[in-house]
Amino acid sequence: MSTTSTALVQETKTQQVYTFLRDRLFGGIYMAGERLPSTRDLAHEIGVSRALIVEVYEQLIAEGYLEGRRGSGTYVVDLGGRNPLAADIYEQGSSVGLRDLTTSDTRFTGIDFRPSFPALDLIPRQKWKEASLAVLNSTSLYDWGYADPAGNEELRGQICRLLLHNKGIQCHPSQVIVTAGATQAIMLLCKLLLGPNDAIASEDPTASFIRDIFASSGATIIPTPIDEQGLCVDQLPTLISPKCVFVTPSHQFPFGSILSIGRRIQLLEYARANHSYIIEDDYDSEFRYAGMPVRALRELDAKRVVYVGTFSKNMFPALRLGYMVVPHELVAPLIQLKRLTDMHSPALSQAALAKFIADRHLEHHINHMKRIYRKRRNRLLTALGETFGAEVNITGDAAGLHLVAEFPGRRFDTDLAAQLESQNIRIYPAGTYTISKGKYEDRLIMGFGNLTEEQIGKGITAIANLLK
Amino acid sequence: MSTTSTALVQETKTQQVYTFLRDRLFGGIYMAGERLPSTRDLAHEIGVSRALIVEVYEQLIAEGYLEGRRGSGTYVVDLGGRNPLAADIYEQGSSVGLRDLTTSDTRFTGIDFRPSFPALDLIPRQKWKEASLAVLNSTSLYDWGYADPAGNEELRGQICRLLLHNKGIQCHPSQVIVTAGATQAIMLLCKLLLGPNDAIASEDPTASFIRDIFASSGATIIPTPIDEQGLCVDQLPTLISPKCVFVTPSHQFPFGSILSIGRRIQLLEYARANHSYIIEDDYDSEFRYAGMPVRALRELDAKRVVYVGTFSKNMFPALRLGYMVVPHELVAPLIQLKRLTDMHSPALSQAALAKFIADRHLEHHINHMKRIYRKRRNRLLTALGETFGAEVNITGDAAGLHLVAEFPGRRFDTDLAAQLESQNIRIYPAGTYTISKGKYEDRLIMGFGNLTEEQIGKGITAIANLLK
Repeated sequence: MSTTSTALVQETKTQQVYTFLRDRLFGGIYMAGERLPSTRDLAHEIGVSRALIVEVYEQLIAEGYLEGRRGSGTYVVDLGGRNPLAADIYEQGSSVGLRDLTTSDTRFTGIDFRPSFPALDLIPRQKWKEASLAVLNSTSLYDWGYADPAGNEELRGQICRLLLHNKGIQCHPSQVIVTAGATQAIMLLCKLLLGPNDAIASEDPTASFIRDIFASSGATIIPTPIDEQGLCVDQLPTLISPKCVFVTPSHQFPFGSILSIGRRIQLLEYARANHSYIIEDDYDSEFRYAGMPVRALRELDAKRVVYVGTFSKNMFPALRLGYMVVPHELVAPLIQLKRLTDMHSPALSQAALAKFIADRHLEHHINHMKRIYRKRRNRLLTALGETFGAEVNITGDAAGLHLVAEFPGRRFDTDLAAQLESQNIRIYPAGTYTISKGKYEDRLIMGFGNLTEEQIGKGITAIANLLK
Repeated sequence: MSTTSTALVQETKTQQVYTFLRDRLFGGIYMAGERLPSTRDLAHEIGVSRALIVEVYEQLIAEGYLEGRRGSGTYVVDLGGRNPLAADIYEQGSSVGLRDLTTSDTRFTGIDFRPSFPALDLIPRQKWKEASLAVLNSTSLYDWGYADPAGNEELRGQICRLLLHNKGIQCHPSQVIVTAGATQAIMLLCKLLLGPNDAIASEDPTASFIRDIFASSGATIIPTPIDEQGLCVDQLPTLISPKCVFVTPSHQFPFGSILSIGRRIQLLEYARANHSYIIEDDYDSEFRYAGMPVRALRELDAKRVVYVGTFSKNMFPALRLGYMVVPHELVAPLIQLKRLTDMHSPALSQAALAKFIADRHLEHHINHMKRIYRKRRNRLLTALGETFGAEVNITGDAAGLHLVAEFPGRRFDTDLAAQLESQNIRIYPAGTYTISKGKYEDRLIMGFGNLTEEQIGKGITAIANLLK
């Protein structure tokens, strides 16, 4: 090859790299003021010699696109917004509108009576950091690869230990599947058990996102009322057999009632007669303020009951870990479905949680929070009683992170909620949670988990002023 | 109340706590040698006085169930396996069999030619630890609550930047949805787009778990052959319009071919005419060894192509983070489906990954690994060439973490694989990946990502010895 043709090829390459870099400056990949990759890194990345990159950088510096700073690198000059590509690089369409549609408002900083939400400032952050670090410092290489779809073995063992200890549930780690919160457990169950020709009977009212999960399966949802003893089992369908019955027996969401032992037996009989599975969502029963711990339905029947638990309330929501304890016949299909859904839950977080529980930090934290939540609940009870007296009936306050306040004759609608929102107070009318509409409009679902006693007092005063 | 009746109540309570604790010793909650909770914690937990717990502990110590150790707490004495409840506490059923069924063998320590698997020992563990720590040290309280179902905003911005930089894809963060790996992205797309009356056309062969995801939707799978130019677009169905076409255009899995530009245009025309969505799974194209970077199909059409990416190969599998870039009309329904599936991906890991990328560690790591993987690939090419000469044809080696070795006249079956497994070597016959059976039985899919050059040499020698 002659030197002439080599020079020609070399020149073409330089030109290519020049265009490549300049397009990236105009395309907004490198922003004004940003430091460019080192010549060495960029040379490796695009597979040319370092000398060539140096040459192109120098050219772009000479032309005023870039500036070199002694001992610090090469930076992008502020071109004052002159960017010929900027307007066109995104697909047509109002992305602003989409953001509004899809962002959930999770950072409301006022007084938020959100039910079933834990105290963010009391999350054991330091202990969690220590557990995470300990795991990061002691992993084997295989811990960074793919893992068991059913979940970390140590974590599943710890879950069994806690369930036996706290709820009297006797199960084997092979029956436990770790999931991305209770949400994923319920989604996997619906996907496995329900098709468009099936039916699921559900407590009504219930959490709206859970109702949406049922609906996503295409199955018919049969709303079944609840009363102060929990699900009205005698109103479950008799002409068709639902594939599943969804219940929150330890602390009904949102009404807080506890499924009575008579109803429990009746429900299990119904499930056996109809070959239904019972999905028992036990989302917050660890926090119990009166009487003995509530036992689980699962304790009474291991074949028909799927028990669903979460670490969102007793640890923290961002963790996204929960689990289900499933009858033997469902173990293999559910693990396969979990694998097809996300392979497995994040392995290092699972290992950190296993260590956190094994070191007894979770039990300590729950005991600590039980005391805190009891105080907050008592403050809410007192504030409601002192402010509204006989105008309010309180139910569902024996456990969990919320209670129900009924104001006979009142009607809580979106207008009222909006007025309070403008005062930086957020309330949750019970009507939001019903499948059959027009019921329970005189009730508020009042969470107290993430509110200080002072905030609770202020919030109740504001509500009282508005209702005057 | 008289002192007599108080004493009576007191005695009953002691008895209850005694039974409670002893049941737990026999029930296997407290194991031999384990330290019991402190009297203070246990008293809080079960809501009795600390004095009562002290009394029961002393009783159980006296009876030989427990032992107190000075300054250290109360421990469970080894009862030598005498546990009257142990045999009955689990549901009937062979849990051992279930473990066998459900445990995936992810810890094979021999020479594993597993395709699409990264080098575990070169994962940037220290830098990842630093990023995780930095996030744990700088969170706001809200970072521990529920988060945006679409994903961490900073992470989505960084993904856009990388996509523009590496693949020429121009997209807005509002079009990016963070998922639990590519697996979840594909599962969500199938759940949203496919029902039992729909069809999906897929490259054949393809990864078997991806085929299982398609099947889980109930849709008809139309296997479409591939050749050295990738998907044979002219063999896509003409009598029915598939809702989706699944392709791996940058480096076909498992055959490694790159979809030619002619085929790309043809495929986009097909998708437009049939109102099909194209699912572009770009699982490993960052590692490119010859020629220019492969551009994405998504670059050519933002309305019909859903681009799916993963951090399992360029970071690590246990992380379980990936993403998809979706057409505007699919943004809202996919975010809603993501929310119903698991609320959102774990928030702290997402924040750590965003920081890791913003600090340029990912780009450095990819550049570093490109050099390592290129060496491993070259070693595999050399070893195959030197050992088998003209008996082997190699294809699909221009990118990624695997290549295809074709041995005309040979047949790789499960027997051969089992023989090698007994020598601690694992191979992957191409036949495993086909939907239409009986094809490609003369080929091996050979991953080199997690093998040292020495292991590659040894592995090829062992395969050669067996084939002699």
